[in-house]
Amino acid sequence: MSIDVLQEKIRKMKNPSMVGLDPILELIPEHIKQAAYSQHGQTLKGAAEAYKIFCCGILDALQETVPSVKIQTGCFQALGFEGVRVMEDVIAYAKDKGYYVLMDTMRGDIDCTAQALAESYFGGVKVGENTYMPYACDAVMTNAYLGSDGIMPFTKFCAQGKNVFLLAKTSNKSSREVQDILSGDRIVYQVILDLAMRWSTDLFGKFGYSEIAVAVSGCHPRVLQEMRRKYDRLFFLVPGYGAQGANARDVQYAFDKFGYGAVVCAGRSILYAYKKAGNDGREYQKHALEAAERMKKNLSGFVTVL
Amino acid sequence: MSIDVLQEKIRKMKNPSMVGLDPILELIPEHIKQAAYSQHGQTLKGAAEAYKIFCCGILDALQETVPSVKIQTGCFQALGFEGVRVMEDVIAYAKDKGYYVLMDTMRGDIDCTAQALAESYFGGVKVGENTYMPYACDAVMTNAYLGSDGIMPFTKFCAQGKNVFLLAKTSNKSSREVQDILSGDRIVYQVILDLAMRWSTDLFGKFGYSEIAVAVSGCHPRVLQEMRRKYDRLFFLVPGYGAQGANARDVQYAFDKFGYGAVVCAGRSILYAYKKAGNDGREYQKHALEAAERMKKNLSGFVTVL
Repeated sequence: MSIDVLQEKIRKMKNPSMVGLDPILELIPEHIKQAAYSQHGQTLKGAAEAYKIFCCGILDALQETVPSVKIQTGCFQALGFEGVRVMEDVIAYAKDKGYYVLMDTMRGDIDCTAQALAESYFGGVKVGENTYMPYACDAVMTNAYLGSDGIMPFTKFCAQGKNVFLLAKTSNKSSREVQDILSGDRIVYQVILDLAMRWSTDLFGKFGYSEIAVAVSGCHPRVLQEMRRKYDRLFFLVPGYGAQGANARDVQYAFDKFGYGAVVCAGRSILYAYKKAGNDGREYQKHALEAAERMKKNLSGFVTVL
Repeated sequence: MSIDVLQEKIRKMKNPSMVGLDPILELIPEHIKQAAYSQHGQTLKGAAEAYKIFCCGILDALQETVPSVKIQTGCFQALGFEGVRVMEDVIAYAKDKGYYVLMDTMRGDIDCTAQALAESYFGGVKVGENTYMPYACDAVMTNAYLGSDGIMPFTKFCAQGKNVFLLAKTSNKSSREVQDILSGDRIVYQVILDLAMRWSTDLFGKFGYSEIAVAVSGCHPRVLQEMRRKYDRLFFLVPGYGAQGANARDVQYAFDKFGYGAVVCAGRSILYAYKKAGNDGREYQKHALEAAERMKKNLSGFVTVL
């Protein structure tokens, strides 16, 4: 079971964390951009090349410390096909380095589109007699606003070692506008967790958690605590750590008493740690590693992974 | 105002319809695939080339008849960067031909990712001293599950002639699982329409409709009728016509008494009309045009665009 694979990697490194690769051109160190531009000009290809150098550098730096990575597809797609091309390279690089790779698509599709995307992440795209998997990864994060029809094309690969994460409660302030709508005794984000449970039949791994996981932000610790209590068989991805405001104390509630059942994601606070140090980014890898180690240490103050 | 541009195109052609470009490899005529494969092999590039030939052929065939086109980004992205490359070409081709172009992203992002995507669709991506817009289009369809934070980066371009469409009520059967949750006297999809109205301050065009539009499927005619009555200033994109089951009688409720305020989208029933005719697809353009004209005629039986 794939969620066990993630859990094992976490145990091995004693670090329930995930680094979010959200490349942003303005924040990438100048020397990387100059290197990329000198070869490809100030073009989308040049920018994409800078993303690739930077992201692979982060993956190099954290490989002994952080077990999993979340790829923010939108950041790469924003550069057009050149961005998508390097995203494919970064995914392959992360897999090579042994990371558990979650593709954060933030999409919710149905029908033939969902089917096509699921094949391209998990099952393989058939072209004539050949099969390709441009984004071969371990897991995909989707938006369940469209219901089962949008989720089933992905979850059918759960039996083949893939995971599906559903956006439930996000970190941002306005998340309450739709996600916190109350209906009877349930809240919309809770409906998503209920659906995840309903879709999880026979999909529980050896640690007791479902292959269908949910994202519940650390920025709302009481929600996290309440949801952990009610849904003890759902694995939680906890975004919001660091730049978005959640700390180790907030996210501790996502874990069970063995330190299992969750992974905490941080992006900018690790990627761009060099900015806080106030230097030019030539040592961005060292700063990223320090930030990741600090996060591991902070988490260990509240969560002990057995 | 951009929604007026769409409305004017609809008036000129007396056809409130939109063709959905959802390329699916198995459904593309054999002769197109063979031509593409003979040049690029049975590769993702070959498949992408087949998508391009097919989609541009559809755009050629319908240019005098159908005013607008919806690009299903997921179908192209499923082929990896080669798919995204031809998607860029297809967008540019559709714009050249005079179509109003809506990018159906089905995504809901926040923060820097939403910002990056909005720039790449609407505002331009800055790389050094240059600016690029890989997906230059008129409108984007997004998922509002994350609330205002995910929508504002896009709607700020509404004042510059761009439109944002929000998924509200979709065509698929399981759409009820989340979208139909009842809270007090409101339903979740209605909350989306309320948000669209709230975000629409100063964004109303000369026909009275907001630059922020919503997708309400034609597969639920009573919902459509009720929502039209309650939200007479929101422009409706009505998916679900044709292959998904809605007909002209169902979708008529989306329109005001002048035949304004909505556009009906059909994809597969037009693109793959040659399949129904039972032939090999060498004349897929003729069949697509006939299907589009039939749809126009059927709509005109219930809706008169003044």
